[in-house]
Amino acid sequence: MKKGEKMKFGAFGEVMLRLTPPEHLMLEQTHTLRLAYTGTGVNLVGNLAHFDMESYLLTALPDNRLGSAALANLKSIGVETKYVIQQEQHIGTYFAEMGYGVRPTEVTYQNRKHSSFGLSQENDYELQAFIETVDLVHICGISLSLSDQCAETAISLAKKAHAQGKKVCFDFNFRPTLNQEQDQRNILKQRYEEILPYCTILFGSIRDLTELLEWRTSDSTKNPIAYIQSFLAYYDIEWFAGTKRTSHEGRKQLKGYLITVTEDAETPFYELFVLDRIGAGDAFAAGILLGYAENWSLTRTVEFATGNARLAHAIQGDVPLTTRKQVQQLLDAPDVDLIR
Amino acid sequence: MKKGEKMKFGAFGEVMLRLTPPEHLMLEQTHTLRLAYTGTGVNLVGNLAHFDMESYLLTALPDNRLGSAALANLKSIGVETKYVIQQEQHIGTYFAEMGYGVRPTEVTYQNRKHSSFGLSQENDYELQAFIETVDLVHICGISLSLSDQCAETAISLAKKAHAQGKKVCFDFNFRPTLNQEQDQRNILKQRYEEILPYCTILFGSIRDLTELLEWRTSDSTKNPIAYIQSFLAYYDIEWFAGTKRTSHEGRKQLKGYLITVTEDAETPFYELFVLDRIGAGDAFAAGILLGYAENWSLTRTVEFATGNARLAHAIQGDVPLTTRKQVQQLLDAPDVDLIR
Amino acid sequence: MKKGEKMKFGAFGEVMLRLTPPEHLMLEQTHTLRLAYTGTGVNLVGNLAHFDMESYLLTALPDNRLGSAALANLKSIGVETKYVIQQEQHIGTYFAEMGYGVRPTEVTYQNRKHSSFGLSQENDYELQAFIETVDLVHICGISLSLSDQCAETAISLAKKAHAQGKKVCFDFNFRPTLNQEQDQRNILKQRYEEILPYCTILFGSIRDLTELLEWRTSDSTKNPIAYIQSFLAYYDIEWFAGTKRTSHEGRKQLKGYLITVTEDAETPFYELFVLDRIGAGDAFAAGILLGYAENWSLTRTVEFATGNARLAHAIQGDVPLTTRKQVQQLLDAPDVDLIR
Amino acid sequence: MKKGEKMKFGAFGEVMLRLTPPEHLMLEQTHTLRLAYTGTGVNLVGNLAHFDMESYLLTALPDNRLGSAALANLKSIGVETKYVIQQEQHIGTYFAEMGYGVRPTEVTYQNRKHSSFGLSQENDYELQAFIETVDLVHICGISLSLSDQCAETAISLAKKAHAQGKKVCFDFNFRPTLNQEQDQRNILKQRYEEILPYCTILFGSIRDLTELLEWRTSDSTKNPIAYIQSFLAYYDIEWFAGTKRTSHEGRKQLKGYLITVTEDAETPFYELFVLDRIGAGDAFAAGILLGYAENWSLTRTVEFATGNARLAHAIQGDVPLTTRKQVQQLLDAPDVDLIR
Amino acid sequence: MKKGEKMKFGAFGEVMLRLTPPEHLMLEQTHTLRLAYTGTGVNLVGNLAHFDMESYLLTALPDNRLGSAALANLKSIGVETKYVIQQEQHIGTYFAEMGYGVRPTEVTYQNRKHSSFGLSQENDYELQAFIETVDLVHICGISLSLSDQCAETAISLAKKAHAQGKKVCFDFNFRPTLNQEQDQRNILKQRYEEILPYCTILFGSIRDLTELLEWRTSDSTKNPIAYIQSFLAYYDIEWFAGTKRTSHEGRKQLKGYLITVTEDAETPFYELFVLDRIGAGDAFAAGILLGYAENWSLTRTVEFATGNARLAHAIQGDVPLTTRKQVQQLLDAPDVDLIR
Amino acid sequence: MKKGEKMKFGAFGEVMLRLTPPEHLMLEQTHTLRLAYTGTGVNLVGNLAHFDMESYLLTALPDNRLGSAALANLKSIGVETKYVIQQEQHIGTYFAEMGYGVRPTEVTYQNRKHSSFGLSQENDYELQAFIETVDLVHICGISLSLSDQCAETAISLAKKAHAQGKKVCFDFNFRPTLNQEQDQRNILKQRYEEILPYCTILFGSIRDLTELLEWRTSDSTKNPIAYIQSFLAYYDIEWFAGTKRTSHEGRKQLKGYLITVTEDAETPFYELFVLDRIGAGDAFAAGILLGYAENWSLTRTVEFATGNARLAHAIQGDVPLTTRKQVQQLLDAPDVDLIR
Repeated sequence: MKKGEKMKFGAFGEVMLRLTPPEHLMLEQTHTLRLAYTGTGVNLVGNLAHFDMESYLLTALPDNRLGSAALANLKSIGVETKYVIQQEQHIGTYFAEMGYGVRPTEVTYQNRKHSSFGLSQENDYELQAFIETVDLVHICGISLSLSDQCAETAISLAKKAHAQGKKVCFDFNFRPTLNQEQDQRNILKQRYEEILPYCTILFGSIRDLTELLEWRTSDSTKNPIAYIQSFLAYYDIEWFAGTKRTSHEGRKQLKGYLITVTEDAETPFYELFVLDRIGAGDAFAAGILLGYAENWSLTRTVEFATGNARLAHAIQGDVPLTTRKQVQQLLDAPDVDLIR
Repeated sequence: MKKGEKMKFGAFGEVMLRLTPPEHLMLEQTHTLRLAYTGTGVNLVGNLAHFDMESYLLTALPDNRLGSAALANLKSIGVETKYVIQQEQHIGTYFAEMGYGVRPTEVTYQNRKHSSFGLSQENDYELQAFIETVDLVHICGISLSLSDQCAETAISLAKKAHAQGKKVCFDFNFRPTLNQEQDQRNILKQRYEEILPYCTILFGSIRDLTELLEWRTSDSTKNPIAYIQSFLAYYDIEWFAGTKRTSHEGRKQLKGYLITVTEDAETPFYELFVLDRIGAGDAFAAGILLGYAENWSLTRTVEFATGNARLAHAIQGDVPLTTRKQVQQLLDAPDVDLIR
Repeated sequence: MKKGEKMKFGAFGEVMLRLTPPEHLMLEQTHTLRLAYTGTGVNLVGNLAHFDMESYLLTALPDNRLGSAALANLKSIGVETKYVIQQEQHIGTYFAEMGYGVRPTEVTYQNRKHSSFGLSQENDYELQAFIETVDLVHICGISLSLSDQCAETAISLAKKAHAQGKKVCFDFNFRPTLNQEQDQRNILKQRYEEILPYCTILFGSIRDLTELLEWRTSDSTKNPIAYIQSFLAYYDIEWFAGTKRTSHEGRKQLKGYLITVTEDAETPFYELFVLDRIGAGDAFAAGILLGYAENWSLTRTVEFATGNARLAHAIQGDVPLTTRKQVQQLLDAPDVDLIR
Repeated sequence: MKKGEKMKFGAFGEVMLRLTPPEHLMLEQTHTLRLAYTGTGVNLVGNLAHFDMESYLLTALPDNRLGSAALANLKSIGVETKYVIQQEQHIGTYFAEMGYGVRPTEVTYQNRKHSSFGLSQENDYELQAFIETVDLVHICGISLSLSDQCAETAISLAKKAHAQGKKVCFDFNFRPTLNQEQDQRNILKQRYEEILPYCTILFGSIRDLTELLEWRTSDSTKNPIAYIQSFLAYYDIEWFAGTKRTSHEGRKQLKGYLITVTEDAETPFYELFVLDRIGAGDAFAAGILLGYAENWSLTRTVEFATGNARLAHAIQGDVPLTTRKQVQQLLDAPDVDLIR
Repeated sequence: MKKGEKMKFGAFGEVMLRLTPPEHLMLEQTHTLRLAYTGTGVNLVGNLAHFDMESYLLTALPDNRLGSAALANLKSIGVETKYVIQQEQHIGTYFAEMGYGVRPTEVTYQNRKHSSFGLSQENDYELQAFIETVDLVHICGISLSLSDQCAETAISLAKKAHAQGKKVCFDFNFRPTLNQEQDQRNILKQRYEEILPYCTILFGSIRDLTELLEWRTSDSTKNPIAYIQSFLAYYDIEWFAGTKRTSHEGRKQLKGYLITVTEDAETPFYELFVLDRIGAGDAFAAGILLGYAENWSLTRTVEFATGNARLAHAIQGDVPLTTRKQVQQLLDAPDVDLIR
Repeated sequence: MKKGEKMKFGAFGEVMLRLTPPEHLMLEQTHTLRLAYTGTGVNLVGNLAHFDMESYLLTALPDNRLGSAALANLKSIGVETKYVIQQEQHIGTYFAEMGYGVRPTEVTYQNRKHSSFGLSQENDYELQAFIETVDLVHICGISLSLSDQCAETAISLAKKAHAQGKKVCFDFNFRPTLNQEQDQRNILKQRYEEILPYCTILFGSIRDLTELLEWRTSDSTKNPIAYIQSFLAYYDIEWFAGTKRTSHEGRKQLKGYLITVTEDAETPFYELFVLDRIGAGDAFAAGILLGYAENWSLTRTVEFATGNARLAHAIQGDVPLTTRKQVQQLLDAPDVDLIR
């Protein structure tokens, strides 16, 4: 990346089909579904593209009509699709029955392991060209648990990108409930430990360090920030960011934090108005990466990212379609509810 | 009912067509309606079927395409339809224009009196077989006011079921606004008084006792619970249950209560998030009946029933499609808003 | 009606709710319905209003939200609603499951007898003012079979209008399958015979004369047109009009005819492209009445009316929203399939 | 207007096409839009028609299918369309992407200047007949900035109506963001000053007086109400009304005020539940005009108007379809959330 | 099966999710899909249930919300679901982009092999109870190619059912394009040969015998019917049935045939009006099985089955929801296009 | 364009918003519209992109949310959007009420002249870079009549592209009904004559030469092909292509032709199955350009182009989303109606 140039982003991740019943209906109540194409990588680079950043996706789609439709959709959100390949016949799918009030949103996954992405191997991709094209590579923790091939590709990508001086950003995205068996957890821990030395930016929480990595657990309680900072120092990581959520009598709140080895910044708790919370974490990540790319201060970065995440809660679907202008509008004039 | 067996439920009640404009639109604003098949009995046995209880509906549907479609829908929610008959040509219908905030939901009923159900007579049904099949019969107060034939069938059913050792559950469902003429009220009062001696479980409120039945009104104010208990004792009723609603500056709250001759239990007031409140009372009733069937404590029963009613407020349509697991999830972890 | 003035039309008839599943689905296959307000009278005066003729409906709607929505809809199609009253609570309803190819469209009626219209009596309406306002009164045969009150109102309206020099137009609309019992048929026959002496224009077929009226049946076979003309002479009727349909290997065709005591005209058979055939007969009637109002030749009138009916087959819903320009376009340039 | 007669209303204003994505979706997320016909004048007279007041619109629609569809829609909401003309080919259009929580609603206007209304001139309309028909003429400030012809027609209408003893009601509707250039602002100021002497009722805020009219600015801060009253005295205006909005931690509130030269009334702040806030200001205006027409007290009028505006926030679309009964229901029993 | 009793049917087959864009749109053109649950077995027993025959499905659904929704849907079409199990997390899915005219319908399958059904094994099911319950077992050839486990279960089911005196009906459903590799074809051939000795009724074509089974190929051309009859004799098969399609200048036609060892019957070619041809073959099969169950003549059976298939072409979706009455109506009065 | 490289295409043309009522409804019958982004240039390069050809659009979109949504849509169909600019606030719009059978499709245009495209000037675009990027420039005749600026830009683009050795393709797209005044026609004629010397490929009909250009009219009747060829010779044009449509008793047919100075080829008449004919001409053009780019024979080219146009008649919307494979499938196996 030459001086004065804008950073270019690339994400390695799965494209999923999301099917959502309209108007908060449950699956038994409708014969109609809303179709969208999503995934952590899609959400992230789609949002960065809306921030006018050149953003690439490295993924595998089915070599059929559905793959073509997915590709059309990726293009429409501004994602650069040069490194998207089409092979095999299956795409991971999930159904989102949107909750309301005390009724939680229920997500039902269909087979992801045998998807074009799940079955793809490192050699299927133009990895080297991808690395050369972008300045920062984003990898989602889900790739480490989806299939052995995906995990291998992800780790190899991190190593190679790092070796070529590119930034690597890693999102823990660890879900304890999905990985309850000890064996599976041990394998995951190993993979996470293998990728961390090549990372510059991490998205995660203290629980990822204590529960998954079991990293110097005894140090974690006294001073959580110092604990995280020692972790960052250990792995030579620049930025560690994430969000916290609270809920009180049905009111949800959100704050964001951003920690370096020497500093930390966090936002106040903001009230959440939730239309669709899926993908809001990716909006936060996109905001952080934008601040990183443009050398913003920690505070400006985390406020922007959290504002972006708040907006993403108010947008249907996973992919945050927010622009810089919209986020700035929220930060500058949070009470405006009609723009014309 | 043999020991160790699960209780079987049966409800006598009307199936109605519900037509709802989408997205809170008013009737003038749309050419599209959402279609569903509902009714107190449908809601109740449909919900009990989702709790894995064998549940039967005793009703009459039109002998035409609409009746067939209604039947298909009853089956889809798990209701046993062996005792559903098809005759005549009309089904009661209502339009629900969904309110929002300060705008109330407006329900407009079309002709119910001349529906297949309204015109049906005791002899049209296999009453005896129905009674033999189930352990508990639910009757809705609306049957007592819909038509003379319905009232006669309902009362006869209560008597026969009681005579054969089956439990009878009766839901007052009395709406003062619908019965403002004194004559009509006197007839209704008589019918209610006729059915009460055969009942084991009642759903109602203190106002049903004072306003409709005018039962020892002077005793009602001092100690309302004692007043209700004396009523239960008089009619030899085991359980009396219902809900209370409050509204303060646009915030709605709900509590449930469950009273026996000697005990009583009630929940705290829970905040309501209302997507569609129609049918929530039937969800409460289904929860109470489940607790009754499984010998739960009063407290466990009323908390479960109230949790079920809270969820029903967050589900589109009348029929509560909640499962035991979903209700338990709310009671155990009320702040979870995303399940995957 | 003064010379040089445009004729004003009035129809006495029922407004019905029509509910149609989208995209040829059957009732079991959808939770969504398309809502429209229709009826022979609505269709006729709605179409005449689109021909820029002042057109009134005399009907009764429910005094509730549904009645208001129906009223709004009548206004939107240009019908003058001054003589529409709102009382009672029910509106007749029908479901139209649209057929395709060899699958016939299935219409399921819900209660019409107890609708606001079915229950309405002569005194409920401003009959005299209505008659004074219009030049031609249209009455549909269905009114004679719907309820005793409707039949009485219809016959009284015909007599009074005729007495005041207004034209009366009567549409047989007799459906043998709906009136299979001899008793009912005898009553109907009597009512039809009672109204005929006051009529100037009739819509019907030779079968109406032979099967329902059993009018000099032996004369009907030799020369059908002469037979009809003798009937017209007997009752002093000016115009007798109707359509014939054929079907051959799935291809439908339509022709129109128009007969006076001394003349007759008919169109060739035109191929039909059927999107929705309900209401097409009313489009034919509207075309005939327009020709009558404007003193067109028999041929011009019947060609226009048949063109209008052909267009109505290609319009969703009952109400023909065609304009003069659209009908003329079809007659002048039948092969144009794109106008811009 | 004769004694005892109901006031008749007329509005001069643009009809716009409103296109709204369903379910809070953004334009990129949907291929489906909801279509409605709106505009300040439409909203106002449509609402007054729902209050059973004879209400006319003076406007120009395209002379094409879209104009016909718009006309049908105006009729359906009860607007008298006698003075609506059809010429030219374009109608102003706007897209409303509905916001949610912290995400503001975004309105995108398409060309309005070259619409049938924007291009229309005084002579195109039957101005004199319109003035004779109505008792009160409503003019929206937007007409003064839309095009020179519209401004001329609006001012001429105000003068002529005033000269013939009709009331003139003027809505400032001034949007600083839309008129940021000084030149444009000066022209507007002049036009506003030209119309004010003919006005009886004004809808506006203190900012309209200070920012747009720059009227004795130094007097405005000490006693705002006295300041407004001196303005009313200067221009001989009877009523000055408007609303104030607040927002605190995501909770919106609304109050209304109504000021005469000698009196003033205002409501408390009411919590807002916002489904669609566009058009709510017109609902407030309709309520005020109803009170004016029926000689209600200031307090009754402003409470009714504010209640109407609160309901309008809870109705999809611009046009407030509220009836007197619905507004009264809110004022009398604000906690009722289900009517049947 | 006792004399005079109605035959009971059971099918072993996969339940699939079908997702269809509305109004002939392609996947890139819509964000909305219509959802249905289908499959050869579902279509067959669903249709038989509509013919009032007790009909069971033996299948495996996911143990998640999607499985529950599928189960609700099976119930709604009248299928007995007692032998449906829920395990694993995936259901086979296909997308149907509906063609029009010269544009073919395109079906895109997603992973079926790892579905709950694909992964299910014989021991997962209550095979013995299923066999005891039904009189005729239907097995689809797709089960033989879907997965090894499915093939084993299917073959075992055929053997056991046959051993217990139940009829076995087998549908070749062989698609050459899906099985182009010789290895796969050899395995399939072996499996087909293994199951045939236990079959009583076959659905197939002469090409199945020549291309897949390569059965005495040289005999096939001279007298195709005699060739098929010799095959039936060899395997002791009672009935062999299927359909033929032709297409000429865009007009499609269909005929059905039914062959026994000694007799054969076929219908004329009927013109097809195609709304959705998927599932029409299953409608034909259901018609044949009904004739078999009720001892109809070959001619009556094949005419009924072909009529049913023609209707199924005119119904959206796979599952033929036809009743006996509807099929008979087509056979008796093929030109009726409106029933009321 | 280097040898062996694929030709790159660029089109200069307007992007329009298309709004279509669903299911053949008319504007008065629906509150729902389907939204798409179309235009001759969009259709052409969108289709070429689906043929895997690099294809650019040169156009101006509004600088607002609608422009962004349009841009997203262009990307989704594979169009290269590097030369798309965003300025001004309006986009041309049209409503397409889809006809059926004898009812023609009616297109209603809204203001196009003041759209971002209509107001754009040559200097607003990166014309030079665009010309350098592509090998063939497509210009639509509509640009010559839309506005003076557009006409100037179009002519200048043709001249410059021609001067730099790029191919220029021009589509007459002349609609006599839209240009009935002689003045306007003379200006148009002049502009057409000005652009023709720079063109290599023309899409048009003999009527364009005789009626608009009035080119040696007397020669046109004897031998139409020779007449066209002399025109091609005069202007040094390589290819002249177009389609002919016939209609007989409701059956539509289509043929394509392709003429050079020395040769000509045409297809037989093919029967049309019309779902949506708008945009089919652009599909034909895209097919011709593909053949030109790949040096196919005249016959192969015109058959492919006509096949593509036939498919486009069977696709909803303007933009032909056909692939090479789909067109080839139609040419090779026209009777296949289901692909799986």
